[in-house]
Amino acid sequence: MYLGSWLNRLGRGLSRPIGKTKQPIWGSLSRSLTLSSQRVPEFSSFVARTNTCGELRSSHLGQEVTLCGWIQYRRQNTFLVLRDCHGLVQILIPQDESAASVRRTLCEAPVESVVRVSGTVIARPLGQENPKMPTGEIEIKAKTAELLNACKKLPFEIKDFVKKTEALRLQYRYLDLRSSQMQHNLRLRSQMVMKMREYLCTLHGFVDIETPTLFKRTPGGAKEFLVPSREPGRFYSLPQSPQQFKQLLMVGGLDRYFQVARCYRDEGSRPDRQPEFTQIDIEMSFVDQTGIQHLVEGLLHYSWPEDKDPLVAPFPSMTFAEALATYGTDKPDTRFGMKIVDISDVFRNTEIRFLQDALAKPQGTVKAICVHEGAKYLRKEDIEFIRKFAAHHFSQEVLPIFLNARKNWSSPFAKFITEEERLELTRLMEIQEDDMVLLTAGQHEKACSLLGKLRLECADLLETRGLALRDPALFSFLWVLDFPLFLAKEESPTELESAHHPFTAPHPGDIHLLYTEPEKVRGQHYDLVLNGNEIGGGSIRIHDAQLQRYILETLLKEDVKLLSHLLQALDYGAPPHGGIALGLHCGSF
Amino acid sequence: MYLGSWLNRLGRGLSRPIGKTKQPIWGSLSRSLTLSSQRVPEFSSFVARTNTCGELRSSHLGQEVTLCGWIQYRRQNTFLVLRDCHGLVQILIPQDESAASVRRTLCEAPVESVVRVSGTVIARPLGQENPKMPTGEIEIKAKTAELLNACKKLPFEIKDFVKKTEALRLQYRYLDLRSSQMQHNLRLRSQMVMKMREYLCTLHGFVDIETPTLFKRTPGGAKEFLVPSREPGRFYSLPQSPQQFKQLLMVGGLDRYFQVARCYRDEGSRPDRQPEFTQIDIEMSFVDQTGIQHLVEGLLHYSWPEDKDPLVAPFPSMTFAEALATYGTDKPDTRFGMKIVDISDVFRNTEIRFLQDALAKPQGTVKAICVHEGAKYLRKEDIEFIRKFAAHHFSQEVLPIFLNARKNWSSPFAKFITEEERLELTRLMEIQEDDMVLLTAGQHEKACSLLGKLRLECADLLETRGLALRDPALFSFLWVLDFPLFLAKEESPTELESAHHPFTAPHPGDIHLLYTEPEKVRGQHYDLVLNGNEIGGGSIRIHDAQLQRYILETLLKEDVKLLSHLLQALDYGAPPHGGIALGLHCGSF
Repeated sequence: MYLGSWLNRLGRGLSRPIGKTKQPIWGSLSRSLTLSSQRVPEFSSFVARTNTCGELRSSHLGQEVTLCGWIQYRRQNTFLVLRDCHGLVQILIPQDESAASVRRTLCEAPVESVVRVSGTVIARPLGQENPKMPTGEIEIKAKTAELLNACKKLPFEIKDFVKKTEALRLQYRYLDLRSSQMQHNLRLRSQMVMKMREYLCTLHGFVDIETPTLFKRTPGGAKEFLVPSREPGRFYSLPQSPQQFKQLLMVGGLDRYFQVARCYRDEGSRPDRQPEFTQIDIEMSFVDQTGIQHLVEGLLHYSWPEDKDPLVAPFPSMTFAEALATYGTDKPDTRFGMKIVDISDVFRNTEIRFLQDALAKPQGTVKAICVHEGAKYLRKEDIEFIRKFAAHHFSQEVLPIFLNARKNWSSPFAKFITEEERLELTRLMEIQEDDMVLLTAGQHEKACSLLGKLRLECADLLETRGLALRDPALFSFLWVLDFPLFLAKEESPTELESAHHPFTAPHPGDIHLLYTEPEKVRGQHYDLVLNGNEIGGGSIRIHDAQLQRYILETLLKEDVKLLSHLLQALDYGAPPHGGIALGLHCGSF
Repeated sequence: MYLGSWLNRLGRGLSRPIGKTKQPIWGSLSRSLTLSSQRVPEFSSFVARTNTCGELRSSHLGQEVTLCGWIQYRRQNTFLVLRDCHGLVQILIPQDESAASVRRTLCEAPVESVVRVSGTVIARPLGQENPKMPTGEIEIKAKTAELLNACKKLPFEIKDFVKKTEALRLQYRYLDLRSSQMQHNLRLRSQMVMKMREYLCTLHGFVDIETPTLFKRTPGGAKEFLVPSREPGRFYSLPQSPQQFKQLLMVGGLDRYFQVARCYRDEGSRPDRQPEFTQIDIEMSFVDQTGIQHLVEGLLHYSWPEDKDPLVAPFPSMTFAEALATYGTDKPDTRFGMKIVDISDVFRNTEIRFLQDALAKPQGTVKAICVHEGAKYLRKEDIEFIRKFAAHHFSQEVLPIFLNARKNWSSPFAKFITEEERLELTRLMEIQEDDMVLLTAGQHEKACSLLGKLRLECADLLETRGLALRDPALFSFLWVLDFPLFLAKEESPTELESAHHPFTAPHPGDIHLLYTEPEKVRGQHYDLVLNGNEIGGGSIRIHDAQLQRYILETLLKEDVKLLSHLLQALDYGAPPHGGIALGLHCGSF
C-alpha cells in the first residue's frame, strides 16, 4: 500500500460517501483548494471566462459574468445547472421572444455538452434558495449562450451516486474523472504533494534533483523492467528506486536531496502493487535515525489537509521484535487491540498433548489472542473459516483452539484445562464474558505470525458482523525500528541475505557482532506504518567503504565488482547519510 | 536544446566564469537560495550541526557552533578551510598542548575528508579579514573535532579552476558535483522549477497530475522505447510526451493540468537530445493561443532568477513565414541582425548566368545577407569554409558569391555587376565599408534555409575571430506562430503529413481551405524560441470529433482505429483546449 491509498481515503472522508448523497459536496472541495497556499489561486486567468461556476455567491450579485462548463441537467427548459471543475451554478434560461436563440442553444444541447454562457448574477427568488448548494443563493440570468461542443448519449450519468462497474469506469475514464469524487481526489493529491515540496524545498533547503530512469542494471532487489537499447544485446533498466543515485548525491555534497520519483517493479500487478509507482524520495547528510523521523513527522504534519485533525507528533514507535511479539507482523494496525499474549507459563504442566509437545521443544511457546465479544458476534462458519485458514496457511504444529467464555468454556480442549490454568488465563488475557480466545503453540515467530494474521481476519469478520473495530477516520501512524540487518536465506538457511538492502548501516551497539554473530545485528532501518500498511521505509546508510565491502563480500557473498563505483565513492569522503522513501500511488489517472 | 541548457548558462552568469577565479563565488549562491521563498530555509534542521559553514558572519560572534563538512585545504597546520553545501569557513586549529587530539585530528585528515568541528565564532585578527570570502570576517576557534570519514587521494582537486576532462568528470561525478558551479546549477534548477510549480499550482489553480509511463504504443511521432511485458510478445511503450493523457484529462474536466513529465525518445543521443528528458507539460481548457502565450510569459517572468534583469513581456512574435524569409529558420536567434534580404528585383536584368537561370524559374529568387565587418574579420580560409559548407549541404543551384566592400567590390562575379545594381544593392542591404555580402539564388525556402545556416556559421566565425556578436547575458525570447498545419511528405510529395502532430487545430480563418487547399492551412501551433533554440512548443487542439476524424482519415490517411479512444472522448463533451510543453534537461546529474 502506498500513501496514495490513504489519500483516497482522506478524499472519501472529505466528501460524503458515494451512494449516500444526491448532491456532490463541492463546498468541501473549494475549502480544501486553499490548502497549499495562503492565497486563493486565480482559476479564471488566461481563459474565456470571468469566473468559475462554483465560486459565485451573493457577493457577486449584479456582476456580469461569463462561464464555461458542462450542462449537468435541465429543469422544464427553465433552469439549467452548469458544472465546471469548481462546482455547480443555476442558469435561468430566458423565456422572452428576443432571446429565442439563447433559449434554443440552452434547451437543445444534450446533457454534458459544453457551453459558454454570459449573464448577470441575480438573487434567487425568496424561498427558492438551495442551502445544500454553495451557490444556492444566486442564479445567472443568461444573456448569451454558445454551444462549444455537443455531447453524444452517455454510457452513464455523471453523478456520484450512480453506481458504475470498475470496467466501465476505466473504459470511460475521462467521464469518470468528471465526478466530484475523482476531481476532489486528484486535486487533494496535487495539493498535498505541493505542500510536501514547500516543506522540503522552501522550509528546509532540500534540493529537488531528477535522476535518470534509463540506466544500467544493479544487483539485488526486485525484478527490473529491461529496455532494449539501440545496441543489440544491451539493455537499459528502469529503476526500482533512485537508491544509489541519492547516495552518490550525498557523496557529491548535495546535503539534502528529494525527488518525487517514478519507480518500476516488474512483479506483476497486485491490488497494492503496480508496475510503476511514485515515491517521495529523501536523503540527507549528517543525519541520524531520529533526525529522519522528525523530518517525516514534520513533513506529514505540514502537508496534512487542514480540515482533518492535525497529526500528533512524535508518532509512537515499536521495535521489530515487539511488533512481532505483540501483533505478529512488522506492520501492526494499531487502531485496535487484540494483542498477542505469551501464555507458555500457564501451560507448563498441561495435559494437552500438542501444547506439551510444543513446549518441550527448545523455542516452543504457547500464544493467544483474545477476541472481545468474539463469542457473541462470530458464527460457527466464521470459526470454521478461521480453523481452515490456520490449517491451510501454516504447518501442522500450529493449531488453534477456540474457547468460549460464555459462562463455561466451550472448546474441544476445555476439559483438559485445569481451573488454575483457566484463572491464570483469564487474568493474563483479561477475558470477559462473550470473548473468544484463539490459542496456538509452536516456535515464537511462527505462532506470532499465525495469530497476527488471525487477528486481522477476526477484525474483518467482526466488521462484517456489524461490530465497528477500526475507525475509518483514524490515521494511526507507527514507527517500526530495530529490524534485523540480515535474514537467513529461505533456500539455504546457513547463508545470509539483507533484510532490506545491503547499504543499511548496522546498529552502532551491534557492530562487534558483525564479526561473531552477524544474524543478531540490528540494522538502522525504520519503517513508517499507517493503519497496518507500510507506507514508507528507510535507513541510515553505510558510509564507510571498508565496512560496506566486508558486508557485501564476506557476509553476503555478493560480487563487489557490480558495486565498485559505490564502494569507490565511499572512499572519497562520503558523509554519514540516511534517508527514506514514502510511497505515493501514481495518481488516480 | 532544452530549458536546462540555458539554466546552465544562467548558472554560469551568476558565478564568475570557470578558470578566471580562484575563489568559488558562494556569495552569489546563497543570495539566490532565497529565490523560491520569502523566508530563508532552515538548512541545519534535523542534523548534527548548528549552522552551515557558509552562513556564518560577524553577527554570529561568540556563538558556540557545530559544523560538518569537507576539508578544503589547510595552511601550515594552523588554519583549515571547511566546506559544506553553503560555502567555506576558516577553522583555527588549536595549538596548545591540552588540545593535542583535536589538533591531530584536524592536521592528519587528508584533504576532502569529512569532519565535525565544534568551536566558537571569533573575529579574525585586524588586517586578516578576507573581503572576497562571505565568511571572511570571522573564523572558528576549534574546541572538538571528529573525523567522520577519511578521503583517499583524489583523482583531481575540488576547485572550479582546476580543468578536468569531461570523461574524468563523468567517471567521478560525485566529486565533480562538489564544485561550486555544479552545486549552484543543481540548486538553481530546483529553485526555478519550484517557482514554476508555485506559479501554476498556487497562483493559478493548476492540478499536478502524474500520468503513466508504461503504456501502449501510439501511432506517429518519434521512435519509442519498448519495454517487454510479462506476457510474451506484448510490450509497453515509454511515452514521447503525455499528449493524449493531457487531452483526455481536459475531456475529464480537470480544467488546468500540469506535470513535470519525464519523456523518452529512442533516437540515439545527440548533444541537444537525450533519450530521456523532462518537460513542463501544461494543458488548459477554454483557452486560446494568446492565453497560453500570456501564461508562459507569466510563468517565466515569475520563476526568473531575482538577480537577473527581469524578463519583459509580452515576448516579440513572428510568423513562421516571416521567420523563414528573414532568418532562414523556424527558430531565429534574434540577438543579432544579419537578416536575409530578397534582392531578386536588383538582378532582373543581370548577365550573371546562374542568377538568370534561377530567376527564370517559376519560384526563383535571389537572396543575400550582409555580414557587417565580414571583410575585415573573416579570413580567406573562412570564406573557403563557407563556400564548401554551402556546396556540401545544399544542392548545386545554390551558390554563394562574396563581395568585398573595401573600396572596390571583390568577387569572382564583381565585373558582371552593373553600377546600378551595385548602388541598389548597397541601399537595400545597407552595405558599409568592410562588410561582406553572401548571395545566393534559387527557390525561396531553399535559398532562405542556406542563408539562415550561413548566417549562424558567419556569427560563429566572427566570434572565433574576436568580434562579439551574441551577448551571452542576453535572453532573447521569441514566439513563432502561424506554422503550416501540414507538410508534403518528403518521400511522397503528393501526400500530406502533420507539421507537428495530428491534434493541432487549424487556424480559424483557414478552416474552409481544409476542403480545398489543405496545404495552405495554418495551424494554431506556437513555438517558443530562445536565442535560436526551440525551448517550447504547443498548440490549440482539435476538440471537434468530426474535424479530427476528417483530418486523420481523409487528409492524413491514418488508421483511425488506433486513435478511436481519443475520437470517442471528443464526442462526449470535450471542451476547447490547448497547451504547451517547455523542455527541461534531466538535471545535471
